[in-house]
Amino acid sequence: MIGNKLELRTPDEAEAVYYEAFMHCDKEVMAALWADGDVICIHPGSGAIVGHEAVVRSWSHIFTNARMPEINFTVAKRTMTDDLAVHIVAEEIATGNEASAVVLATNVYQKFPSGWLMTEHHSSLVPVQTERQGQTLQ
Amino acid sequence: MIGNKLELRTPDEAEAVYYEAFMHCDKEVMAALWADGDVICIHPGSGAIVGHEAVVRSWSHIFTNARMPEINFTVAKRTMTDDLAVHIVAEEIATGNEASAVVLATNVYQKFPSGWLMTEHHSSLVPVQTERQGQTLQ
Repeated sequence: MIGNKLELRTPDEAEAVYYEAFMHCDKEVMAALWADGDVICIHPGSGAIVGHEAVVRSWSHIFTNARMPEINFTVAKRTMTDDLAVHIVAEEIATGNEASAVVLATNVYQKFPSGWLMTEHHSSLVPVQTERQGQTLQ
Repeated sequence: MIGNKLELRTPDEAEAVYYEAFMHCDKEVMAALWADGDVICIHPGSGAIVGHEAVVRSWSHIFTNARMPEINFTVAKRTMTDDLAVHIVAEEIATGNEASAVVLATNVYQKFPSGWLMTEHHSSLVPVQTERQGQTLQ
């Protein structure tokens, strides 16, 4: 940690931490993974949540109301420059007895002096019918 | 045009062309704006559509079945390096008599020898209830 942020050497390392924090409902790690400033998080069916405090609060709310999910994620595409990376990720999220949900996410990471941090997350649910049509990435 | 691609000097110029093409249901411009290769487009509620041909076909399908929409768009955040740009955009889309829809989009542009082209678009519908809660960017 440097200050209250993780030290992550690559976008892939940041992404692994993101999904670990999600699966373990770990608000502290999520807070240390997201950069400060005008970061933006869009959960499935939500509006845009802007700023570190509001984003972490949204995750805290999700973690309070959920069982720890099982998540299988597949990075479909990585685009990267020296200090900006965009990943498109297919997430299969299962929580207990319910059928698993398929979510597509665009994850954006930026490089700071301490390392790579998450600055944007945009996710949307893939309807089951669409999934069956074979349009998803999984 | 260079070959079959537009020559656009900035991500903002590419974005303006994108929304003009959308509003005018112009498949040819859309095709010339999207890069070749493994580009990815995610429409609201769709799976991931991969590759230039499939992406342009999806737009053609949308244009065939829609009236020309009115779109007001607001760029909420721009993140840019020398050859990669990520914009988060709030779109208000109206088609005739129906109530307008609010959509959030993550638009990704990359710089090629000919200029900036679109390489990713991830959009999701903001439910009206969420919008009323004041969580959107508009």
